[in-house]
Amino acid sequence: MAGVGMTKVDRHYDKGFQELAHMAVKNLLNDVKECSPKAIVVGNMLSSSLYQQDSLAALVADAIGLRGKGGFKVEAACGSGGYAVATGYALVASGLYDQILVVGLEKMADYPTSSVTLALAQAADFEHEAIYGASFVALNALVMRLYMHRYEAKREDLALWPVRMHEYGSKNPYAQLRNRITVEDVLRSAVVADPIRLLDSAPVGDGAAAILLASEDVIRKITDTPIQVAGIGLGGDSLDLSSREDLLKPTSILTASEKAYKMANAEPRQIDIAEIHDAFTITALLSIEGMGFANFGEAWKLVREGRFAAGDRPSINLSGGLKARGHPVGATGVYQVAEVAMQLRGDFPGVKVSKAEIGVAMNTGGVVTLTSVIVLRR
Amino acid sequence: MAGVGMTKVDRHYDKGFQELAHMAVKNLLNDVKECSPKAIVVGNMLSSSLYQQDSLAALVADAIGLRGKGGFKVEAACGSGGYAVATGYALVASGLYDQILVVGLEKMADYPTSSVTLALAQAADFEHEAIYGASFVALNALVMRLYMHRYEAKREDLALWPVRMHEYGSKNPYAQLRNRITVEDVLRSAVVADPIRLLDSAPVGDGAAAILLASEDVIRKITDTPIQVAGIGLGGDSLDLSSREDLLKPTSILTASEKAYKMANAEPRQIDIAEIHDAFTITALLSIEGMGFANFGEAWKLVREGRFAAGDRPSINLSGGLKARGHPVGATGVYQVAEVAMQLRGDFPGVKVSKAEIGVAMNTGGVVTLTSVIVLRR
Repeated sequence: MAGVGMTKVDRHYDKGFQELAHMAVKNLLNDVKECSPKAIVVGNMLSSSLYQQDSLAALVADAIGLRGKGGFKVEAACGSGGYAVATGYALVASGLYDQILVVGLEKMADYPTSSVTLALAQAADFEHEAIYGASFVALNALVMRLYMHRYEAKREDLALWPVRMHEYGSKNPYAQLRNRITVEDVLRSAVVADPIRLLDSAPVGDGAAAILLASEDVIRKITDTPIQVAGIGLGGDSLDLSSREDLLKPTSILTASEKAYKMANAEPRQIDIAEIHDAFTITALLSIEGMGFANFGEAWKLVREGRFAAGDRPSINLSGGLKARGHPVGATGVYQVAEVAMQLRGDFPGVKVSKAEIGVAMNTGGVVTLTSVIVLRR
Repeated sequence: MAGVGMTKVDRHYDKGFQELAHMAVKNLLNDVKECSPKAIVVGNMLSSSLYQQDSLAALVADAIGLRGKGGFKVEAACGSGGYAVATGYALVASGLYDQILVVGLEKMADYPTSSVTLALAQAADFEHEAIYGASFVALNALVMRLYMHRYEAKREDLALWPVRMHEYGSKNPYAQLRNRITVEDVLRSAVVADPIRLLDSAPVGDGAAAILLASEDVIRKITDTPIQVAGIGLGGDSLDLSSREDLLKPTSILTASEKAYKMANAEPRQIDIAEIHDAFTITALLSIEGMGFANFGEAWKLVREGRFAAGDRPSINLSGGLKARGHPVGATGVYQVAEVAMQLRGDFPGVKVSKAEIGVAMNTGGVVTLTSVIVLRR
């Protein structure tokens, strides 16, 4: 990985896809000595359903001065960004191209919540879930209820995660939500789908993040601080929840992380820094357990004990996570990889750890249905 | 490439995404000794806009007995399929996975033409073209008008292409249109967007095609007749037509084919068999010229002279092309690669050539905006 650039996640009402991509790539250009990718991979979920716009790779190429470069969009619902990075890696590592630009790009905030909720429900199984009115948050609420019941976790215990995320978000200039909150704020916030409350949920926001990937042959011309993509794993699960054996065993995360750790020759306990997918509080807990950072049913206890905070191993979501950095859905996975890379380089502009050697980014689409895990090394 | 399978392109009103994918993969299983891909890449354009369904990789995995496999969708409008194959190649060639399943999958025929036309317009620039009523066929009509004017080609000359495609389609059991037509039929058919008539246009249809890609290490366990992916090139052009220097110089095809030929160490005159993107008659001509099979402005003359027919070098679109085999948009590129592979193996069930050594598949999205070129060798 040769360089990164991103925009603040925000309600960018005055900016289109092209402007957002341009802002992120402009920041990327300040991060590298040279940038001449031969093709572009765009991570995006909603451009078709909300903006009637396909062919996003061409739109982005036009916006950033790369007209004539081929490319395509990668879509795996909210997991699109991580898969886009994995695809970019494969295009370079296969020898097809020596530089690939990956842009995570999403606009959502122009639309009212009802439209966004409908569009996000496309991540679920339309025929078996969405058509019956099961929104994406409703499906996650079922899982959270089961988690609380089986593991005897209290609602107030599960409020600690978003409180911590807002604390980190308040220090991250790229974060959408910069305000601090308390456990009481979480418990008093509106019920979205019981037991999920507003402050358990990632906000709706627009954003773009860009990463330049390059082969070993050319990377020293581009940067003095390359970050190695050491491991990649892709995992899946049944699309509809009713087909799953156990809603609290996130098969897709287990599969993807096992593969990624093995390829990187790393173990969970060696990871210094992680960005995980906390679209809802329950998603954070499943992710922590699926990644092997906690035993099943114990993530909430470890969070209560203060684990995974800045300086712990791993330190998790120092960006503020999806909860506070924001979750421009198809772009999120690219943000995560960029943030982990900056932590490894030591130049992340928010809360950071020192001397991190190994980091991991975990991004998922659907109710932990399509997951990618990417291990980075300094 | 280890094996291929496809469904007849048709108006599959009674089949959903899962049934179509299942049919194609079932045929693939009859083509290989073993099939155990670790991840799935789906080529698709319209699932989100027409069917409110994202996360297609998980939907397909569930349908074909591969639950738990990770994957994602690749979208580049009508060029999605070719890019999906290119992505599958990269995932294998990078060493990430030793087997990857690529499924091209599209459903369109359930919807009335007006809805399909609107959805296909997403391939164009929404802000600069589609919103002003420029449908996808209207944009291609502008290009066809210019071609006829600059190169002094007559309308009846340009009717020869679809006549030939229907002839080939009549012999291909997987083709949507099996009827033969005449030049008079083309000239008398309804005007869609002058000068494009109905019989210049690919039909609306549903279909699925599957390809299993495998590394050199494992491919002999899977098949005795592997086909080598020898070259891949990706190319692009400005999304909106008004930004292009010359509408008759298809930059995206020129870029992609140059790269793919170079990687395959092949020249256009060496190609035995080709499947090119003839969504409209004008697209066939631009593709033939862009691929280096004819000089600019001369493809229509060569077609009139009988060139590119079965037995010529290259023989082009013996499947019947998009025009007659059909054009389930995001799946088409996978059909093309499968057809070229079968021609090289000598077991294509329609019109075929003997002893073909090198073949090429060329697929594009938008008005030749996002193109992939894939060279195969026996």
